[in-house]
Amino acid sequence: MRLEEAMIEAPSYVHGYDRRETQRLADQAGTLVDLLHHDTSYPPGTTVLEAGCGVGAQTVALALRSPGARFVSMAISAESIAQARQRVDLAGATNVEFCRADIFSLPFAPGSFDHVFVCFVLEHLAAPVEALAGLRSLLRVGGTMTVIEGDHGSAYFHPDDRAAKEAVRCLIELQRRSGGDALIGRRVFPLMVEAGLHAVRVDPRMVYVDSSRPELVEGFTKRTFTAMIEGIGSAAISSGLTDADSFDAGLRGLYRTTEVDGVFCYTFFKGVGEMASDS
Amino acid sequence: MRLEEAMIEAPSYVHGYDRRETQRLADQAGTLVDLLHHDTSYPPGTTVLEAGCGVGAQTVALALRSPGARFVSMAISAESIAQARQRVDLAGATNVEFCRADIFSLPFAPGSFDHVFVCFVLEHLAAPVEALAGLRSLLRVGGTMTVIEGDHGSAYFHPDDRAAKEAVRCLIELQRRSGGDALIGRRVFPLMVEAGLHAVRVDPRMVYVDSSRPELVEGFTKRTFTAMIEGIGSAAISSGLTDADSFDAGLRGLYRTTEVDGVFCYTFFKGVGEMASDS
Repeated sequence: MRLEEAMIEAPSYVHGYDRRETQRLADQAGTLVDLLHHDTSYPPGTTVLEAGCGVGAQTVALALRSPGARFVSMAISAESIAQARQRVDLAGATNVEFCRADIFSLPFAPGSFDHVFVCFVLEHLAAPVEALAGLRSLLRVGGTMTVIEGDHGSAYFHPDDRAAKEAVRCLIELQRRSGGDALIGRRVFPLMVEAGLHAVRVDPRMVYVDSSRPELVEGFTKRTFTAMIEGIGSAAISSGLTDADSFDAGLRGLYRTTEVDGVFCYTFFKGVGEMASDS
Repeated sequence: MRLEEAMIEAPSYVHGYDRRETQRLADQAGTLVDLLHHDTSYPPGTTVLEAGCGVGAQTVALALRSPGARFVSMAISAESIAQARQRVDLAGATNVEFCRADIFSLPFAPGSFDHVFVCFVLEHLAAPVEALAGLRSLLRVGGTMTVIEGDHGSAYFHPDDRAAKEAVRCLIELQRRSGGDALIGRRVFPLMVEAGLHAVRVDPRMVYVDSSRPELVEGFTKRTFTAMIEGIGSAAISSGLTDADSFDAGLRGLYRTTEVDGVFCYTFFKGVGEMASDS
């Protein structure tokens, strides 16, 4: 299989490009931005490649946190880039340029970047190691790569609910059928090591939600996770993975976890590795 | 059901009292002591009830961290108390007294304690809220209760492995049949709230293990979690939940996660709540 074929760009049923989905991504980014990015900042004068910026959900947070760094944010979809540019302009960030490119066919010379940043991209790729290895080659010696991915198998909740777990399983299975891996968060460490990064350190970022944290009940459990599951309903039913009644029961089970005695857990994984002289 | 009947004290197949099991608990306590207890210390002059101290795995850490506090550590088993006392003496802690008692029939007056500490106890109880409510009544107004529990449903790993998940499921099912709940960690918040604690705040403590953290590969994945699963093999097979070949395959799957590209995740939940004047 050629690398270009291996790339599965954000399948429409998982991360679509409609307005509702874009809003969900923005909500997700707003709620999670501190959890995921509070410890990512790049020194003035450095050049950072954001590989797979999508609609710019993370780009704004990155650019505002490192005003002296220069970002090159790359996506395969011109429409996504247009939205990302708009978000960046609205936020008043002036240190981002955009580039339309395929992550498996990168239009940059080796050693072009001080840092590479990859967030919510590998989950969609059938060849994540190849993608990381290609990105690694763009780093100067001593540069770093940061990788952030979720893991839908890390979701568990109270009340525990079979139908809700089945609905989550539908998303995992759809992603698998499209060539991706919804359980990729737990694989960030071995993927980065296999791609040739050195001194890889992975730090999980767990989102814990109970009713004492209403902003997460709303912003994460309802508007991020459950909205994402809701968004794959038609695809899951039409592909025969479930039926409408079962899927609705699953959604009710997920919403049930947002009540006063409910609990919801999910974990993102953030890895940082280095480009070594001998790698 | 009378409360005394509801109490399931550390079933032998889960937390047995043999030497190997005692060593496992000690290993677990050593590896996890900072993660779980680094932010628990009690002021000089306060009196703390440790409810369900078992063989004293947490008692030493508690007592040494708060040398000016006085601990009353309680267990239902005289044999456990003898071991706990020995551990405390060996560690040189002089601020612990032991008391043999049933958590559902507590020999203390209301308001006797400044703080109550409960760790790895509720998972074995069929009536955890009643246990917590009884302990709450022993607190003076303004006192705190700390609850720590694991959650075996929070375990996931790479490589993902069906047989390994089945082996974990056997433990969850055995604990359920004995009246306990191996998924209780995610319930710490609602249980404490239902028991009448105020201002409950739960903070998850995730154990993330990959080969860059060899002390956790050894101390947690192998010697704590997988050892625990291994310890229920006979019971799981004799109860018809699995067969020897399937269970062995599950153990191999768990050990596989300790190789250089493996990852293992598990989460403990730590809750702190207050005894309010109107509660």
